[in-house]
Amino acid sequence: MAGKELDGFHFEQMHGKDRVRVARVWRARDGRHFMVEWNVSISLFSDCIAAYVRDDNSDIVATDTMKNTVYAKAKECTEQLSVEDFAILLAKHFTSFYSQVSGAIVKIVEKPWERVYIDGQPHEHGFKLGSEKHTVEVFVKKSGAVKLVSGIEELSVLKTTKSGFEGFIRDKYTALPETRERILATEVTASWRYTYDNLSRIPQKPLYFTERYVDVKKVLMDTFFGPPKEGVYSPSVQSTLFHMERAVLSKFPDISAVQLKMPNLHFLPVNISSKDNPAIVKFNDDVFLPTDDPHGSIQASLSHFWSRM
Amino acid sequence: MAGKELDGFHFEQMHGKDRVRVARVWRARDGRHFMVEWNVSISLFSDCIAAYVRDDNSDIVATDTMKNTVYAKAKECTEQLSVEDFAILLAKHFTSFYSQVSGAIVKIVEKPWERVYIDGQPHEHGFKLGSEKHTVEVFVKKSGAVKLVSGIEELSVLKTTKSGFEGFIRDKYTALPETRERILATEVTASWRYTYDNLSRIPQKPLYFTERYVDVKKVLMDTFFGPPKEGVYSPSVQSTLFHMERAVLSKFPDISAVQLKMPNLHFLPVNISSKDNPAIVKFNDDVFLPTDDPHGSIQASLSHFWSRM
Amino acid sequence: MAGKELDGFHFEQMHGKDRVRVARVWRARDGRHFMVEWNVSISLFSDCIAAYVRDDNSDIVATDTMKNTVYAKAKECTEQLSVEDFAILLAKHFTSFYSQVSGAIVKIVEKPWERVYIDGQPHEHGFKLGSEKHTVEVFVKKSGAVKLVSGIEELSVLKTTKSGFEGFIRDKYTALPETRERILATEVTASWRYTYDNLSRIPQKPLYFTERYVDVKKVLMDTFFGPPKEGVYSPSVQSTLFHMERAVLSKFPDISAVQLKMPNLHFLPVNISSKDNPAIVKFNDDVFLPTDDPHGSIQASLSHFWSRM
Amino acid sequence: MAGKELDGFHFEQMHGKDRVRVARVWRARDGRHFMVEWNVSISLFSDCIAAYVRDDNSDIVATDTMKNTVYAKAKECTEQLSVEDFAILLAKHFTSFYSQVSGAIVKIVEKPWERVYIDGQPHEHGFKLGSEKHTVEVFVKKSGAVKLVSGIEELSVLKTTKSGFEGFIRDKYTALPETRERILATEVTASWRYTYDNLSRIPQKPLYFTERYVDVKKVLMDTFFGPPKEGVYSPSVQSTLFHMERAVLSKFPDISAVQLKMPNLHFLPVNISSKDNPAIVKFNDDVFLPTDDPHGSIQASLSHFWSRM
Repeated sequence: MAGKELDGFHFEQMHGKDRVRVARVWRARDGRHFMVEWNVSISLFSDCIAAYVRDDNSDIVATDTMKNTVYAKAKECTEQLSVEDFAILLAKHFTSFYSQVSGAIVKIVEKPWERVYIDGQPHEHGFKLGSEKHTVEVFVKKSGAVKLVSGIEELSVLKTTKSGFEGFIRDKYTALPETRERILATEVTASWRYTYDNLSRIPQKPLYFTERYVDVKKVLMDTFFGPPKEGVYSPSVQSTLFHMERAVLSKFPDISAVQLKMPNLHFLPVNISSKDNPAIVKFNDDVFLPTDDPHGSIQASLSHFWSRM
Repeated sequence: MAGKELDGFHFEQMHGKDRVRVARVWRARDGRHFMVEWNVSISLFSDCIAAYVRDDNSDIVATDTMKNTVYAKAKECTEQLSVEDFAILLAKHFTSFYSQVSGAIVKIVEKPWERVYIDGQPHEHGFKLGSEKHTVEVFVKKSGAVKLVSGIEELSVLKTTKSGFEGFIRDKYTALPETRERILATEVTASWRYTYDNLSRIPQKPLYFTERYVDVKKVLMDTFFGPPKEGVYSPSVQSTLFHMERAVLSKFPDISAVQLKMPNLHFLPVNISSKDNPAIVKFNDDVFLPTDDPHGSIQASLSHFWSRM
Repeated sequence: MAGKELDGFHFEQMHGKDRVRVARVWRARDGRHFMVEWNVSISLFSDCIAAYVRDDNSDIVATDTMKNTVYAKAKECTEQLSVEDFAILLAKHFTSFYSQVSGAIVKIVEKPWERVYIDGQPHEHGFKLGSEKHTVEVFVKKSGAVKLVSGIEELSVLKTTKSGFEGFIRDKYTALPETRERILATEVTASWRYTYDNLSRIPQKPLYFTERYVDVKKVLMDTFFGPPKEGVYSPSVQSTLFHMERAVLSKFPDISAVQLKMPNLHFLPVNISSKDNPAIVKFNDDVFLPTDDPHGSIQASLSHFWSRM
Repeated sequence: MAGKELDGFHFEQMHGKDRVRVARVWRARDGRHFMVEWNVSISLFSDCIAAYVRDDNSDIVATDTMKNTVYAKAKECTEQLSVEDFAILLAKHFTSFYSQVSGAIVKIVEKPWERVYIDGQPHEHGFKLGSEKHTVEVFVKKSGAVKLVSGIEELSVLKTTKSGFEGFIRDKYTALPETRERILATEVTASWRYTYDNLSRIPQKPLYFTERYVDVKKVLMDTFFGPPKEGVYSPSVQSTLFHMERAVLSKFPDISAVQLKMPNLHFLPVNISSKDNPAIVKFNDDVFLPTDDPHGSIQASLSHFWSRM
């Protein structure tokens, strides 16, 4: 947030518009349609302290105006572009169009509409909703300085074996048995920072970041699951998470930092007994109780020294 | 609900257990794992009026016992089975095991875990969450009479053209323009009733209903979208819905009725103007405002005369 | 839904508009404001089969028109009225204005905005969101026949004692211990049908149904909790539910039927042990684990013989 | 998160347990019961890098152990205490009990159970769910250093007049008309930091922070609404937010910083027209369309110079 001294206080503020929903359709000459649906949030660092303290709105960009701008800019995009490029374009607009605006944060969540296949053929104008979501958060300053972070939300993955948890601290509050055989399930939230630190350095290749997103997701999945036949043993969520992060940083030279949140969504072994019946259900790696509530929360970020998330 | 006369009143009651979550893993000899995750709801029609009016619980099946039964029965399923077969098995248990229980309704929602592919190969024990969900609702009576209804939830589909809406009633409350070009988007909730009306008639082929589910979904999608190149014109959600239902009934002789709920999830044309600027954004089949709130609600069921949903 | 024979099939259909949000403000001469916020759903039974089967929309009331009508009718209400009266007014409009419409169902959920008190004084134009919600569902036929059902949603209540569960069926799946001391918690969904069966019989007194709503809620709460000092013992959710229903029917002569859904939201006793430490936590009616997942589902309806929910 | 050099990378990590639900009941000698329901999240800053990089879990506090600790500590609290005091007690435990743990963050959301009144009398053991929620986030270091932040979630407030928005920037994207008469509605998320920066300085008075919570909420509400008769004019959300923050800082000497998020939840004037009917609905400060999607997002923090949020 933008900070300021004020009557002996320190004051920071930010205003913007959340949940601006926009869909954009492009129609190719060959008959194929392309479409995206974006949920856009804008926050401006703006010199408008007078509105807070002197009832003077003359430096305020109305949030309704921000909303209109999203639609106007989507209209101007006559060629298909990545969600990253649209976020950058919007943020750049606000910092350059308004003298009051020193910085802008634009966050977008892209709805996972995927082209349908009918009888094995891609449909020209038919789409179906998939699962995990592509996200972006970009921070642009008036100077042209950029911080660009892409991500994935709601990527739920599970493996039915090759996971354990042993050798942890045992004390008077510990009841969890050690195991080398359990289900490992998580909903991955990933974000990664690109090295491009100025508007002038952003790659101009169309859909560059869209392809990167697909590639990063593949590396994350490959590392989580291991080879199709043997898989790979996970001694802890922590270890698996770390290997996923290192794989991303090793593979993509224009990614300088990566953060993963991987809650441990427990699939509890089911054992049910009573005084009269000591084995109503006895667990044998077969029947599990999935639960979200509570869950382990594991998160970490790995970065090159010259960068941070 | 089970009805009863009581002190000059009419009384109907039902009790059960909702949201029992269970996962079942099967390990094949060749190393492949199979897994399902089910969210089970049970309702019993049970002669237990004394609990309501005389504080006498002696005819009550505790809902905790119902929960335990889900896990015990899942354990007994040593071979992979369809969600329909598990629902039937559970309902049959309650009606046969307890003299007080005259009927049981079991509803299950299956989480869409799908096997992952790594480098083009199916992973032996890796799964990823997909989108739409397979549901089932079965009603079994002590006599063995069955009503079996399968379904799909959260199947979101969209086409960017070949949709219109014209010629509807115009009156003093009407503002909607007629159109032959719009986005059509909906979240399909489908359910279909099978003809099998007695436990003795349920097909014994393993995964019979799992395959049916895939086939019905394909027919629904094919009809909604039309051929990959041309698509098919939709003059209204009503018309598209009806053709989807008729296609299902025509194709599957063991389905006697089908119901579809297809809310019209509007993608509004974006036109923004002000007194000073009559065309901040002018719509040209390109920029849309997607909204859920409000939405049209269209639902219908089609059935053979000898059946109903 | 409205049924019809069709090409050898039986066809039923319904269409309408969901989640139409409207707020209405009334300004009294003394400076006080009154406001409501309603979420309206409309379903029409309409003779418009041609839209489904012959691509002919000429009998269709567009759902956009329905939405506009909600706002137009809200505007016409120059005096404050109950949510029930607004639902009736809307349903009556659709059945009388359109020859094609034989019946209309209008459901409304009222947001619980409550006047705030500042320094003990009611504020003239300030409101704050409360908790449970007032609902209504009305079905009006062209003939003037009415079915009027009011209700409460999300009324969460809990008592820390005077609840037990004993003497239920014990079998090989039963693990639950008997108890005379537990927490009883539920989220009540109530609905009750009024006796008024024709538009001509609806009471004309302003805010009649608003007052009834308050009175019914009081009876439900008083019965659930019992007197402030002693409370009242609940031998089962079933028993408590039944007494609540009987109290409502006994007290209000113009209510002919009442339905309650009272999920048993378990507060599980916390006992934690391990091989090394048999009493990490030992329960003594003090520490509980609240859970929604799974929960018991108990519902029942009580009605006079000449009525049904 | 705890940072570390690692193989030429910078690594930060944190692990814990989310959504641990616990209820605690206290029974006073006079027959009155007191109860709270808390949803606890724990994050530990722990020296356990070996688990990430060397498959060695020997420094890991299992998240299951953290969960058990919540229940064990709740049990030890034989006297009623504020949610703040419980959070501090938990965080202090983790930093003092484990040599590996250098810091702990504990967040708790308290469910708004309120004692019910029956016939004007407080019920001894009956509770009902209210609306807005009390939150706390505490960060404790091994040294005893503390950062204590309390808050409110989901406090929805609305006023039907005495709100406007004028004089903002008008440019080619601006369509919003200026107004001195509109509905102002928001869902306040508030948080405030206490001055107590060491465990040794935390006030020992029982329920001290519970009372503070009530008092801060009152100041926020009083400032938002103004006097019961005249209210107070709001020239912008920004201005109202700032006055609320300043009022809190002025009133409470042990609060050093306050942050408010006040999304502008628009109640749009309803005007509906068509070519044929220019005034289907014409707005006259009476009929509004409430919407969450999109909304303005306004947030700011005000602090003494020697403190920050």
